[in-house]
Amino acid sequence: MYEPATSIDLEEIREDECLQLLDQHHLGRIGVVVDGQPLIFPVNYGLSHRIVTFRTARGTKLSYAPGSNVAFEIDEYAPATGVGWSVLVQGVAIDATTALDDVSWTARGASPHPVAPGLKIHRLAIKPSSITGRRFKLDN
Amino acid sequence: MYEPATSIDLEEIREDECLQLLDQHHLGRIGVVVDGQPLIFPVNYGLSHRIVTFRTARGTKLSYAPGSNVAFEIDEYAPATGVGWSVLVQGVAIDATTALDDVSWTARGASPHPVAPGLKIHRLAIKPSSITGRRFKLDN
Repeated sequence: MYEPATSIDLEEIREDECLQLLDQHHLGRIGVVVDGQPLIFPVNYGLSHRIVTFRTARGTKLSYAPGSNVAFEIDEYAPATGVGWSVLVQGVAIDATTALDDVSWTARGASPHPVAPGLKIHRLAIKPSSITGRRFKLDN
Repeated sequence: MYEPATSIDLEEIREDECLQLLDQHHLGRIGVVVDGQPLIFPVNYGLSHRIVTFRTARGTKLSYAPGSNVAFEIDEYAPATGVGWSVLVQGVAIDATTALDDVSWTARGASPHPVAPGLKIHRLAIKPSSITGRRFKLDN
């Protein structure tokens, strides 16, 4: 299983602050496994309560993500302050375009705005099993 | 299998230009699958020929990546120009710390500089099966 950071140099970020960071950002990366091969794609996302959601067209993400384990990650490093952090959402993807379950309803409460062109009429959501983060600060 | 972008709005980036982009950047994300669950971590990396390599301490990446399929991704979006792109390396991870195979030798020709603190004495490398990219440009 996933091993938490053991280095004393890395601080764990609690889930409530991870959610704040997710709420303050709009661009992340989704990880999907296709035939044993992980793939990573950048997506513009929205957050509604604990649900990360994004829009997509037909393609790899829509074909392989629903019902499968996915990862979602955001990160930032600011050289000026020496602070770096990342947040990782683990969970199962759901096709929330029209589904009536609680996660899908919640997901449709967010309004992700894809920057990339193309009609993206489908909505994917992540039912989270784990939301974790890590941060470090370099001495300047 | 991985479906290439079909949207006419997304331009495919050829491998030679993907390698240029990888050479010009230093921060990417590695995707590793642990018990069916994909995970994504930011890493500082280096490129040597077609080999992406990064340093790591003991932990999830070192435990689960070697011998397994991994993904490596970089991306950028510049609001000022409306240009966004991403590059995705698919392949198998190798513990290149001391191994004598060609990929490991090549990997040790690069000097990745981890920004995050902690002693990272191990070196992982990716033997690529595929290096692809996509780009879009919004009309301003």
